Amino acid sequence: MTAENESTAEDGKREDEDDNELVFGLSDRFIDAVRNALRENNHAKVLEELQDLGEADTAELISKLNDDDRAALLKDFSEKMDPYVFSELSWELRRVVLPELPPKQIAAIISELESDDALDMIQSLDDEDFKHDIIRHLSAKTRLTLEEGMSFPEDSAGRLMQREFVAIPQFWTVGKTIDYLRAAAEELPEDFFDVFVIDPSYHITGTVPLNRLIRASRGEKVDALKLEDVHTIPFNMDQEEVAQLFRRENLTSAPVVDAEDRLIGVITIDDIVDVIDEEAQEDMLKLGGVEQDDLYQAVVSTSMARSRWLFINLFTAIMAASVVSLFSGTIEKVVALAALMPIVAGMGGNAGTQTLAVIVRAIAVRELSGANAPRAVYKEALVGLLNGIVFSILIGGMIALWYQNPMLGGVIGMAMIVNLIMAGTFGALIPILLNKYGQDPAIASSIFLTTVTDVTGFFAFLGLATIFLL
Amino acid sequence: MTAENESTAEDGKREDEDDNELVFGLSDRFIDAVRNALRENNHAKVLEELQDLGEADTAELISKLNDDDRAALLKDFSEKMDPYVFSELSWELRRVVLPELPPKQIAAIISELESDDALDMIQSLDDEDFKHDIIRHLSAKTRLTLEEGMSFPEDSAGRLMQREFVAIPQFWTVGKTIDYLRAAAEELPEDFFDVFVIDPSYHITGTVPLNRLIRASRGEKVDALKLEDVHTIPFNMDQEEVAQLFRRENLTSAPVVDAEDRLIGVITIDDIVDVIDEEAQEDMLKLGGVEQDDLYQAVVSTSMARSRWLFINLFTAIMAASVVSLFSGTIEKVVALAALMPIVAGMGGNAGTQTLAVIVRAIAVRELSGANAPRAVYKEALVGLLNGIVFSILIGGMIALWYQNPMLGGVIGMAMIVNLIMAGTFGALIPILLNKYGQDPAIASSIFLTTVTDVTGFFAFLGLATIFLL
Repeated sequence: MTAENESTAEDGKREDEDDNELVFGLSDRFIDAVRNALRENNHAKVLEELQDLGEADTAELISKLNDDDRAALLKDFSEKMDPYVFSELSWELRRVVLPELPPKQIAAIISELESDDALDMIQSLDDEDFKHDIIRHLSAKTRLTLEEGMSFPEDSAGRLMQREFVAIPQFWTVGKTIDYLRAAAEELPEDFFDVFVIDPSYHITGTVPLNRLIRASRGEKVDALKLEDVHTIPFNMDQEEVAQLFRRENLTSAPVVDAEDRLIGVITIDDIVDVIDEEAQEDMLKLGGVEQDDLYQAVVSTSMARSRWLFINLFTAIMAASVVSLFSGTIEKVVALAALMPIVAGMGGNAGTQTLAVIVRAIAVRELSGANAPRAVYKEALVGLLNGIVFSILIGGMIALWYQNPMLGGVIGMAMIVNLIMAGTFGALIPILLNKYGQDPAIASSIFLTTVTDVTGFFAFLGLATIFLL
Repeated sequence: MTAENESTAEDGKREDEDDNELVFGLSDRFIDAVRNALRENNHAKVLEELQDLGEADTAELISKLNDDDRAALLKDFSEKMDPYVFSELSWELRRVVLPELPPKQIAAIISELESDDALDMIQSLDDEDFKHDIIRHLSAKTRLTLEEGMSFPEDSAGRLMQREFVAIPQFWTVGKTIDYLRAAAEELPEDFFDVFVIDPSYHITGTVPLNRLIRASRGEKVDALKLEDVHTIPFNMDQEEVAQLFRRENLTSAPVVDAEDRLIGVITIDDIVDVIDEEAQEDMLKLGGVEQDDLYQAVVSTSMARSRWLFINLFTAIMAASVVSLFSGTIEKVVALAALMPIVAGMGGNAGTQTLAVIVRAIAVRELSGANAPRAVYKEALVGLLNGIVFSILIGGMIALWYQNPMLGGVIGMAMIVNLIMAGTFGALIPILLNKYGQDPAIASSIFLTTVTDVTGFFAFLGLATIFLL
């Protein structure tokens, strides 16, 4: 890593930035300069700019160039980039960038990463043949480590953990431990926060945080110093669970154990930050009806991936339309209904989406479970009733005056109350039930919800109109 | 903290859980047991259950009881709870829970927290009088520290940082540093990962991670050992920026400096996890049209807060309705249009929401800036065009067959293409422009977008119908 360069690099970049106040990151002007140099084939200039960048900066540059400029940059300069530049790229972007490099070069990059980063790199690729080509170029040792890593379930603690850790026998003293750390400096992980105390069969008996170790006197036994409330993580625990455990117990690192409870790795909080980011972003995309981030995907594959969701939506829209067509006779007589019916359906959709956002969030952070879920549904139904009353008076009054037709106002008001109660109830019920039956509440909830609010909205409004206006 | 109890506590809880596989957290059955004991006024039983719980467990219990049971629990048992239980509660929940305790008791809780947690506790309250009552009961020293903390801008690094840190002069040796850490053990923060090296005027000249310190020999100078690429954080940097910097540079801790560049505190990665969670949840709620989490709020205040958003939505719905009423004459003649028009508007809304989710995410994680934004808008318009063509053939064909009217199929198909192009273009453009002009793209984007897709959908469909079908 070229960490020492970064402060100068930042100063250099900041010169360009009189108008926007970036404290870190690349200015648009800087990116433009590199792009122009690339297009002018000015190698010396590109090289000069690259030299000043940290890994995250170079990764940002790669992400913000268009496909052609990116290809030009990678073709001529990727061999000069730090291997960790590629670690900084998102999975999505790696799938675009890495296939442009020769497998041999990627193998060389992977060989220089720490075990967890190497595993993450190979995992992020989705083309099996390409993966295989890369693995062929790895040393036997790296290959073995990677294959072992890949044997753990996807998204599990085993895939997340780092294999490099510091473990010492329980009978050692502080002095002996420190001497060992000094002597073994080469073999230890670059960064670590805790020393694990193990028994002869590699079971963890406690941990000693470094700040505790350093404050103790040399003669003290680690066994007396260690913290015993160790939260060990089974190798197959889902990464989302792991993140939840870290948050809940305010951990900075935790040991991972195999099926026989033996220490096999360590997860540190910086890995957890990545997991949290990933999961939060996934939820946000799913709520919007996108299964996977596609910012860097080509137009055709993006539109194909998104059309699946739109296709399902088309069917629910047709369902709603057929509810409307049941009432063609009514609409023919009172054509104003056609203009007003989307108001009822739309308000239901929006109110329901509010409920959905609150409930999906609460499920994601584990604030909702069987114990308080019925209460939440009940509350949302009441909120729906209350807002239904408020908006029924508002819209009912407006429509009554506008069309000089109090009955029409009454009908839209009643339909509004019905639909907002349904929106609240189902906005809460749908994600709770999906979650209960092991489904991801973020992805499918909104489609079910819109179906409910559209169908109810149209049916209640046009049905009441048929009864009271004809 | 009662950390040593936790492993036994977890075993105890797990006995209850034969059916669901909780690895941590409370089972619904456990919560029911406590609730029943509370209702039966069985103090001994409640106390026994509480004794086994860690802070996060007790906080979970508080969060999952209903208002009455929660009040009963707090009334009789809050004084026996660890102060950090209250730190574990979300801000939202603290605003419900803390006002039920006497100010004097909250002052006692705050006095036992570390400086950053104490500041967080007082910040989370929104009732100024209540806050004032609490502060009155604090010792002069705690009060001063808190008031100083409150003087930093809201959501800034100054509010986030911990005041306790380890700083040493640059001329010290490793041995002297270790001796100091041993001697000063009482005054040091409970956990720390780095030692800061400062000059006489409290400017940072470097940091020494503990694992580097422990591996060095006693005679070495810290000045030679220190890492110089320190990412210092100005006290007024926004917490979202701070989180971004931590992610980008993979930091575990970073020093905070005042306007004169003097070291005043330290931010560690566990604080960052909270910030990331908070920001991600906020974005998710805002995209759903909820300004603040209201899971624990009462029905009336929830419905009032949410009605603001629905009120804005009502106006845009009325706007869309008036577009429809422009075409009453057309609908009167071809009543099928009334049933079909929500399909066009709805598909536009859904496609636009997909784009919105992708773009808002990319802005939040800084993958989008001026350099690649125009490209993103262009791509989304193309994706809209492509999906528009696909769905225009699909829906156009279906409608042509269904109604035996090829012209009607052609009209809905054309309207679909127009609306999906608009959805893609504005789904990208709206958040990018909001962000450019300093507005939060998560909150207002969806309302603008629905207005565009509704108005365009109705106008294109009914307008084309008026031209081609009458």
